[in-house]
Amino acid sequence: MTIQVLDKGFVKLIDHLGNDLTAVRAARISFGKDVMDEERDKRLIEHLLKNGHESPFEHIVFTFHIKCPIFVARQWMRHRIASYNELSGRYTQFGEEFYIPKADDPRLKLSDQQNGEICRIFEDAFNQAYDVYRKLLDLKVPRELARIVLPLSLYTEFIWSVNARSLFNFLSLRADSHAQFEMQQYAKAVATIFKQICPWTYEAFIKHRYTGDLLKEGEV
Amino acid sequence: MTIQVLDKGFVKLIDHLGNDLTAVRAARISFGKDVMDEERDKRLIEHLLKNGHESPFEHIVFTFHIKCPIFVARQWMRHRIASYNELSGRYTQFGEEFYIPKADDPRLKLSDQQNGEICRIFEDAFNQAYDVYRKLLDLKVPRELARIVLPLSLYTEFIWSVNARSLFNFLSLRADSHAQFEMQQYAKAVATIFKQICPWTYEAFIKHRYTGDLLKEGEV
Amino acid sequence: MTIQVLDKGFVKLIDHLGNDLTAVRAARISFGKDVMDEERDKRLIEHLLKNGHESPFEHIVFTFHIKCPIFVARQWMRHRIASYNELSGRYTQFGEEFYIPKADDPRLKLSDQQNGEICRIFEDAFNQAYDVYRKLLDLKVPRELARIVLPLSLYTEFIWSVNARSLFNFLSLRADSHAQFEMQQYAKAVATIFKQICPWTYEAFIKHRYTGDLLKEGEV
Amino acid sequence: MTIQVLDKGFVKLIDHLGNDLTAVRAARISFGKDVMDEERDKRLIEHLLKNGHESPFEHIVFTFHIKCPIFVARQWMRHRIASYNELSGRYTQFGEEFYIPKADDPRLKLSDQQNGEICRIFEDAFNQAYDVYRKLLDLKVPRELARIVLPLSLYTEFIWSVNARSLFNFLSLRADSHAQFEMQQYAKAVATIFKQICPWTYEAFIKHRYTGDLLKEGEV
Repeated sequence: MTIQVLDKGFVKLIDHLGNDLTAVRAARISFGKDVMDEERDKRLIEHLLKNGHESPFEHIVFTFHIKCPIFVARQWMRHRIASYNELSGRYTQFGEEFYIPKADDPRLKLSDQQNGEICRIFEDAFNQAYDVYRKLLDLKVPRELARIVLPLSLYTEFIWSVNARSLFNFLSLRADSHAQFEMQQYAKAVATIFKQICPWTYEAFIKHRYTGDLLKEGEV
Repeated sequence: MTIQVLDKGFVKLIDHLGNDLTAVRAARISFGKDVMDEERDKRLIEHLLKNGHESPFEHIVFTFHIKCPIFVARQWMRHRIASYNELSGRYTQFGEEFYIPKADDPRLKLSDQQNGEICRIFEDAFNQAYDVYRKLLDLKVPRELARIVLPLSLYTEFIWSVNARSLFNFLSLRADSHAQFEMQQYAKAVATIFKQICPWTYEAFIKHRYTGDLLKEGEV
Repeated sequence: MTIQVLDKGFVKLIDHLGNDLTAVRAARISFGKDVMDEERDKRLIEHLLKNGHESPFEHIVFTFHIKCPIFVARQWMRHRIASYNELSGRYTQFGEEFYIPKADDPRLKLSDQQNGEICRIFEDAFNQAYDVYRKLLDLKVPRELARIVLPLSLYTEFIWSVNARSLFNFLSLRADSHAQFEMQQYAKAVATIFKQICPWTYEAFIKHRYTGDLLKEGEV
Repeated sequence: MTIQVLDKGFVKLIDHLGNDLTAVRAARISFGKDVMDEERDKRLIEHLLKNGHESPFEHIVFTFHIKCPIFVARQWMRHRIASYNELSGRYTQFGEEFYIPKADDPRLKLSDQQNGEICRIFEDAFNQAYDVYRKLLDLKVPRELARIVLPLSLYTEFIWSVNARSLFNFLSLRADSHAQFEMQQYAKAVATIFKQICPWTYEAFIKHRYTGDLLKEGEV
């Protein structure tokens, strides 16, 4: 499952461990109840989240492949209860891929024509930076040093493994109007995939634990 | 896959995320190399562990169901980079299951007959404690309070999710002659399962990262 | 600062890193504001907690010396974002100190006389278990094995370092009527010390983040 | 204590919790030994680290104020067992401060004159990027968006709290010839401060646990 995000990025689910029933099974160890029917499983998930018992949801784990601009990755990797492996600018040459804001970005406050001009300023700046990067590599400057001229809009990629409990926290903070617009788009893509794999958990999370404002009950 | 441990315990693999190739794929994101053949994948795993690059192994996750005495669980749960859900003595009545040392336990230093006597002392003490537990429950003492008469030899159960990197640390400390004998048995059972799921990682771990002394190259 | 808890336990503050102003200073790095007056510092703390910005509070760290029964320690050590060093029953002989419930414990449901009898049942069981422990040691059973006859009411001790953010979570879960009575007493003692060291943070925490029901605004 | 690093950065110790004796005291809880003389305290620290008992060192905590280029901060913040509060480019305007490599940087492979030219290429690129940043701000582009034209060489600042055990790992990986040159300079500055606060721990760490190659016994 892959969701395109921004102009060149994506969120791709690579693998996952467990689903709604994983949390049910883990919780039943604690409370010693036998497995019951589907309706009761669903109610148990709601009961757990309503009462703040989040630990059974740690046994559900997702592994994503993410492609996003560096300024987004910088915010993302502040979430410490997760595992990351990122493309290294020391060992590989970065491709010429930058995030370019759109002229209709609501944060641009001038006329349509002027906003179009602003986007061209971004694009020109990125192209110039990449030209310098290439020139430095030609002058035998090592990749790890040449890359420091590249802007924060550069796309990077990483593998991200995260359990559902940590994902709750990620979504509350990042699928929220206080997060930066670009981060919000990634968080919503992650939420869409989460909902597909764990529909009961997702629904109960939104209802009882989610503190953000972009995800609503009954929709993503 | 279930391995019996001690007189009444077990280590059971419930589920797992990924295998040797998961670490290979995560590492290749960092180093930007294309997927290659099996021989090179195996060499990459060895290279990673030889050079201390443990982060790609965090994307491999195991979920176990463990049954062990409380004094073993107490040591186990000191490993914080993992997820636990344990049977609760507040909400369920504990069964009458205790770990009883064997007469040929090498830590018992007297004659065979005397050692047999020691084992009966253990067993009698456990039975008496359980009788008191039952009596207190009959006197309407709540479970959470009655259980405090139960000894550390009581069996408990828990669900344990742990990534391979954290497992490396667990095995180095617990599959080691400095760990308590009973803990060692559990650690060896965990190692056996780990080896079966991730043979290349296991082999390279034992060769390059393992600091304990019970697991040897080429065997478990 | 030491607070006696239960019949033989305590919570003792050994050392701490920072105070209310530590969080203010850390937050001001993020937001780039200059240091201002006391009234604004206090308002900043309230603003941070009201809006879920908990990370500046991680730079405040407390080190406690705790003495509590093992069944309490077992719940305590499930809090993983903290550091623990516990007295080891493998290397030291446990003292004969057990938590004995009181006859007026509200969970005891019989007559005063019968409840007094229940407390004697507890005490007798603990004394018998300790007699067996001593007997096993006399028979040259090593400490690590002999101790498994000891009950969960046995007192243990540990050093606990925890940052204020993790403490928020601890207090929400443990200073709450859903926690076990004995755990509640320890959580309230920890809260009392926390309040004394970080009065502004404590007040704002109770008002905006605390989800338990035992601590109230304006009191401990 | 402040150490200047690179052309415009620094490592500054703001506060710390405990010292060598903190680890001694925490370890003595586990092993039940009384406090003894200075010579034995020092030997205990060496014994602990020689045998891999790192947990007592978690009770020693350092809080640093760091100023470094973003590409260094990106590597730094991958260390998850620590607390961070960073200057936000969303809420504050970044200053015009960039890390400019020196002409005698050993990674520059051309003639002295050509290397000087390379440094000017870096500097010009940074100035141009900052001009675009300022221009975008003038066009009412919000800070969070305008900053994406800024290069990875931009200086940022953050507060970093880390315990000594996590610091061991940081130094093994970053005070090492495999780390990037700029990161090495910061790691060595951190080591210098660590050594000053905890001389016994530092010495025993270098002798028994350190796996890097830049720090030597008897010197920093």
